[in-house]
Amino acid sequence: MSAPQPAPAWHVSQWFNSEPLSLGSLRGKVVVVHAFQMLCPGCVQHGLPQAQRIARQFDPAQVAVIGLHTVFEHHTAMTPVALAAFLQEYGIRFPVGVDTPSEDEPLPQTMTAYGMRGTPTLILIDRDGLLRKHSFGVEPDMQVGADIAMLLGN
Amino acid sequence: MSAPQPAPAWHVSQWFNSEPLSLGSLRGKVVVVHAFQMLCPGCVQHGLPQAQRIARQFDPAQVAVIGLHTVFEHHTAMTPVALAAFLQEYGIRFPVGVDTPSEDEPLPQTMTAYGMRGTPTLILIDRDGLLRKHSFGVEPDMQVGADIAMLLGN
Amino acid sequence: MSAPQPAPAWHVSQWFNSEPLSLGSLRGKVVVVHAFQMLCPGCVQHGLPQAQRIARQFDPAQVAVIGLHTVFEHHTAMTPVALAAFLQEYGIRFPVGVDTPSEDEPLPQTMTAYGMRGTPTLILIDRDGLLRKHSFGVEPDMQVGADIAMLLGN
Amino acid sequence: MSAPQPAPAWHVSQWFNSEPLSLGSLRGKVVVVHAFQMLCPGCVQHGLPQAQRIARQFDPAQVAVIGLHTVFEHHTAMTPVALAAFLQEYGIRFPVGVDTPSEDEPLPQTMTAYGMRGTPTLILIDRDGLLRKHSFGVEPDMQVGADIAMLLGN
Repeated sequence: MSAPQPAPAWHVSQWFNSEPLSLGSLRGKVVVVHAFQMLCPGCVQHGLPQAQRIARQFDPAQVAVIGLHTVFEHHTAMTPVALAAFLQEYGIRFPVGVDTPSEDEPLPQTMTAYGMRGTPTLILIDRDGLLRKHSFGVEPDMQVGADIAMLLGN
Repeated sequence: MSAPQPAPAWHVSQWFNSEPLSLGSLRGKVVVVHAFQMLCPGCVQHGLPQAQRIARQFDPAQVAVIGLHTVFEHHTAMTPVALAAFLQEYGIRFPVGVDTPSEDEPLPQTMTAYGMRGTPTLILIDRDGLLRKHSFGVEPDMQVGADIAMLLGN
Repeated sequence: MSAPQPAPAWHVSQWFNSEPLSLGSLRGKVVVVHAFQMLCPGCVQHGLPQAQRIARQFDPAQVAVIGLHTVFEHHTAMTPVALAAFLQEYGIRFPVGVDTPSEDEPLPQTMTAYGMRGTPTLILIDRDGLLRKHSFGVEPDMQVGADIAMLLGN
Repeated sequence: MSAPQPAPAWHVSQWFNSEPLSLGSLRGKVVVVHAFQMLCPGCVQHGLPQAQRIARQFDPAQVAVIGLHTVFEHHTAMTPVALAAFLQEYGIRFPVGVDTPSEDEPLPQTMTAYGMRGTPTLILIDRDGLLRKHSFGVEPDMQVGADIAMLLGN
């Protein structure tokens, strides 16, 4: 088991529901990143509702829930203007950043920096900015709740 | 109780999953129209899955399931190119028509012709082209299954 | 395809939620029999809730929903006194008959007469007392709603 | 906020799925007690499945999940022989104790000792035998997972 590494910086071209955010500005909180695409059924049906439950469950002074729109397919469909409509219709109120597109490949920059395999992906970062969990797909609420609590208790 | 009226013609600017269709070409079948918007949560979570269950349940030689993309808000987000991506990601295989936008109002033309109040809306048309049910929101599967069977048995 | 046969008579030792009922007394109605055991998880989670939806969906003057407690295992646990508590706790309000135990085999008498394979089993009987459907397990609401409507339309 | 108190001893007349257990014998583990009645719909539909998820989620060397059958109504229906059938049919594999009936009141002895208000009730006891949570009804998995993790991290 290797030591946890610092979480890579985010490359975000636009923020919704928030002023621009950086990992550094969230130091001291546990940070939950839910990477999604607005036309990914698993994200819409499972990942985003779970992120909303996390945001409701934990004290926002202790746990920051951040959405990251990591578009790697259907780029012409999942534009920021479409995302804005999606967030409004689905009642997503936590901050959501648009992962900055790459110039020469379909995967956006933060997605590449984290080595994400697809969407939804859940990432947990501890109070010191260290990457503590990186999970492709959706895990049970009980597992996620326990993982976050473990980081809070550290 | 008034006599059933002929269902208004459809105004469709583009078809997916099908050659162009008209109500007249479906005469002899029971026609189920599911009017939806791709960013309407109730459509994505309840209406479209029900339409897919209808398509699986009934013999396609007897019952035609048709999606109608009736965009009346967020027009710049729910474009045909976005709809194409949506249909692919959600595995919608029945014919879907894009309701033709109006020039001077947000509601598209077929939506206006039918007097639809919003999305999702379920419309049932009998074998003779008569409008037999027009329901805003989602009804239980048992009701919808019974309604369609009643029209089949006529 | 063979012609439908008359549904066998019921052998019921005790009725809940009703005066004693017989198939003959229900002639003219479509009869839905839900055969269950109170400790059968598939019955509790799926079959009985579906029977309750049938009872809510259809006009009781047209469709009679009848529960049949066909105990073929754990006889000492699923006694009539236990069933009474179960029906109260789960809010089952339609008539429920206790299938009369056999003297020399675990299967009760009506279960044997119908050749049921287990619980839950759904049986549909038409207005003339003919057996029209006999299904082990749980079918989708849309199918069941359509089946009942077909019998109503006959 | 008062200091946590020692969890009261259990009064159990019969154990299923286990040799007799006591709180003392579980010292060093986090103990999760799910108090239920086999004919309580909220227990069957929500509480017991959650207890099973807890048992799957956490290392049994760290977290002990215990069912407690706290019968306070329908005593003649929810007997130990009926409970045995129920546990088998629902695939409950964690230890379940029968809360010892009282001589002069409907509530059984452990239920009274803990001041439980009904079923389902979830109780969390820390590694030192102190009562840390006592909750009537069903809480979200994310909350329960976090609560248990907090006790594990202490």
